[in-house]
Amino acid sequence: MNIDDLAKGIAAGERRALARGITLVESSREDHRAQAIALLAALPKEREALRIGLSGTPGVGKSTFIESFGMMLIAHGLRVAVLAIDPSSSRSGGSILGDKTRMDLLSREKAAFIRPSPSQTHLGGVARRTREAVALCEAAGFDVVLIETVGVGQSETVVAEMSDVFLLLLAPAGGDELQGVKRGIMEMADIIVVNKADGDLKPAATRTCADYAGALRLLRKRSQDPDGFPKAMMVSALQESGLSETWREVQALTDWRRTNGFWVRTRAAQARYWFEQTVKHTLLAQLEAPKAKATLMKLSDEVAQGLVDPTKAAQDFVAQLDR
Amino acid sequence: MNIDDLAKGIAAGERRALARGITLVESSREDHRAQAIALLAALPKEREALRIGLSGTPGVGKSTFIESFGMMLIAHGLRVAVLAIDPSSSRSGGSILGDKTRMDLLSREKAAFIRPSPSQTHLGGVARRTREAVALCEAAGFDVVLIETVGVGQSETVVAEMSDVFLLLLAPAGGDELQGVKRGIMEMADIIVVNKADGDLKPAATRTCADYAGALRLLRKRSQDPDGFPKAMMVSALQESGLSETWREVQALTDWRRTNGFWVRTRAAQARYWFEQTVKHTLLAQLEAPKAKATLMKLSDEVAQGLVDPTKAAQDFVAQLDR
Repeated sequence: MNIDDLAKGIAAGERRALARGITLVESSREDHRAQAIALLAALPKEREALRIGLSGTPGVGKSTFIESFGMMLIAHGLRVAVLAIDPSSSRSGGSILGDKTRMDLLSREKAAFIRPSPSQTHLGGVARRTREAVALCEAAGFDVVLIETVGVGQSETVVAEMSDVFLLLLAPAGGDELQGVKRGIMEMADIIVVNKADGDLKPAATRTCADYAGALRLLRKRSQDPDGFPKAMMVSALQESGLSETWREVQALTDWRRTNGFWVRTRAAQARYWFEQTVKHTLLAQLEAPKAKATLMKLSDEVAQGLVDPTKAAQDFVAQLDR
Repeated sequence: MNIDDLAKGIAAGERRALARGITLVESSREDHRAQAIALLAALPKEREALRIGLSGTPGVGKSTFIESFGMMLIAHGLRVAVLAIDPSSSRSGGSILGDKTRMDLLSREKAAFIRPSPSQTHLGGVARRTREAVALCEAAGFDVVLIETVGVGQSETVVAEMSDVFLLLLAPAGGDELQGVKRGIMEMADIIVVNKADGDLKPAATRTCADYAGALRLLRKRSQDPDGFPKAMMVSALQESGLSETWREVQALTDWRRTNGFWVRTRAAQARYWFEQTVKHTLLAQLEAPKAKATLMKLSDEVAQGLVDPTKAAQDFVAQLDR
């Protein structure tokens, strides 16, 4: 594979080149990894998409929201990429975005690019590869990159660390269920979007939206927020209502952040974060090499039999790794 | 410091030698670390204390329980060491067990040894040092090592990984608060001990105990448990009631586990765990060296300015670290 040609293809917005590039960054083969790093280095750096993180538990209507929101963005003349981080993919075999038919209309649009979550054992590995896929989509000239995740804790943090704006999608619920959303996750949200504000669920959605608006007001004011943010809004992805309003709010927020220096500052902090994470990951990846694994296993057996103290064995292991 | 003399002093049960040994394993100075590893290797391996992990949120009466339970064990002719892991110690400056006056009687007993949590920034560092302190206490001939922690999530896992038996201490509460204990923490418990079963709180304690007994029955049966475990019991540390019963249950449980091979199997698995944790910790500790830190900072700045991709920078950094 010629990396320069691939980089040129991606920069020219060729879908097939982009798909091949993402496959490359997702591979854990050592030669592929080296090519992926070369590819990332060869890409144009000046393009910048709006990266929107989107989280929500199963059943809140994430696919329908992405489909409707994505189609609305395309109607505005924008190109939209959709990526995903599925923390459960190693178990379920890739559940989210795995089935493009869930986004029937969007997946057929030329201005849209949908890619399911890479299947990896560790969330850390999935996260790093998705961040690199985001970089490829930016270089390919997409205007908006939506990064979807299922709300189960750590994966939101990871998505927030690669997003400019973070949306938390919720379903209408009784007031009691406010506690169902962990405080830490609510604190990440820039906009809480209450979906399914239609039909029978409209009153419940209105109440849920008011409840969360109240809860958000109790949070400590963040310096990166203009007045009125974070905020809660209602949409119906099904009836396509509230979507343009959501997009206007996202734009208002990001315009303010750009003007006030927070956009650049957040992106710089995120780049540092990924650098540090990747350093740690690369160091620990030494343990996965076949020779290291064999030595680890042998020492671990000795430790388990009580022949050597765990600390001493660890010291001996790292010492022979350096050699 | 002569390490062999120190090891002999600890093996002879000298309190001062034990205290010096623990100070040594707690130190992060590189020469101290080497001495600590030599000390651990020089200690007799055949002694085995019963390691009891104890967790509970602030206010459940952990200190009173440890005092009463410890005095009861001493009355049985046993020697008792009390260690602690305080995940918040870096912020609070060492809150738990820091004040020996909280355990006024126990701290004056010759057969007791109380040591506050090492103050470290990372839970991982505190955990490793406490595990090493447990090994020193075992070598010093203590019969029981109590390892206390505040219930805030990760620290329980760490204590469970160095304990033979895990007690979860709870206060009487309304039935609603059952949800306050995370499922994962309840699943770690061998015995749930509802404290303060005295005076006005007796009815609430009885109800809480029944609630948790019911909740425990809903958990999946673990192979390392005889019939009837995990179980919930009531004590009053203040009135010293239920303590002997708790001790009898602990003994019944550990006797069964010894007879059925689970004691040895669990200890072996724990040793493997600590070995692997220490290997990872040692690898990542390379990042803390002054030269590595300076290079990291420089590269991190370049990454933040968008001059180089985080993945590429990480690869370059690890490559120069190997040299």
